[in-house]
Amino acid sequence: LLGDGGKGSPKVIPPPNFGMVDWGIYRSSYPTAENLPFLKKLRLRSIVYLCPEPYLNHEFVAENKIKLFQFGIEGKCEPAVEIPEGVIRDALRVVLDVENYPLLIHCNRGKHRTGVLVGCYRKVHKWSLASILDEYDRYAGAKARLRDKQFVEAFDASRMQRKGQIWKA
Amino acid sequence: LLGDGGKGSPKVIPPPNFGMVDWGIYRSSYPTAENLPFLKKLRLRSIVYLCPEPYLNHEFVAENKIKLFQFGIEGKCEPAVEIPEGVIRDALRVVLDVENYPLLIHCNRGKHRTGVLVGCYRKVHKWSLASILDEYDRYAGAKARLRDKQFVEAFDASRMQRKGQIWKA
Repeated sequence: LLGDGGKGSPKVIPPPNFGMVDWGIYRSSYPTAENLPFLKKLRLRSIVYLCPEPYLNHEFVAENKIKLFQFGIEGKCEPAVEIPEGVIRDALRVVLDVENYPLLIHCNRGKHRTGVLVGCYRKVHKWSLASILDEYDRYAGAKARLRDKQFVEAFDASRMQRKGQIWKA
Repeated sequence: LLGDGGKGSPKVIPPPNFGMVDWGIYRSSYPTAENLPFLKKLRLRSIVYLCPEPYLNHEFVAENKIKLFQFGIEGKCEPAVEIPEGVIRDALRVVLDVENYPLLIHCNRGKHRTGVLVGCYRKVHKWSLASILDEYDRYAGAKARLRDKQFVEAFDASRMQRKGQIWKA
């Protein structure tokens, strides 16, 4: 449940660009201190963090026994840096492993690196490219990058697949 | 699972502006014929349809034993029409009833009427207004309407609450 329906409970503040990708998978921008009470309610088992800088929420992660998977990807696109396909593939493997759910993917703004990883995830699930880019644009807004879309288009998802069943019921 | 990971299976085409609102709740624009194979995989139990016009997917709804809840709300904002609070409240009651999950909310473009209803849903779950409007804008894009945001801000969610538990596990 995303939030709190309790009478008289305080407001929760999801991180900007927060959204649900699929059952057990969330995405957002970099959570700050004010977002942590909201994140706590998600009962995350893992965080996939896509920046090269040391993680700022290590205390939260330790307290809540969350597994931190860090994949350092450079965020700037000037000067032109290639998106490292191997790293995206490693991150995607974590995202496809049901043992890691509930899981949060984030970078800094939740637009480019996160958008590329979610786009590749959608390719695994056979979304049409137009639908994938519709979603990418929704989160990237005016900051959408052609380079990211080209990467997602070229990404070969045929060797990737989900590991485990989401709900054993 | 949103999509299909099967080898060799055809691509799926989610409706434009498709997204996951919460566990068991989806939102989108008006699904057309090409979106139905994707929707079928969601195993919907209900659709909350927010336009006054007769429903176009009644065959799909009947075949898949989906409950259709229609709440006719006028989509145009010129000439100025008030958003009918009573109707939004009735629709929200359906959205808060776990017996209706998985559930899809849609209007025409999945921006205004759907955005208002999801905004009111977020109020029930105590999201901060800024977070609610961040999400509203993501789906409405350049078509965002101040009127919708004012309605969500003024909406008193204190009397509404969720009915039933999502996962009895």
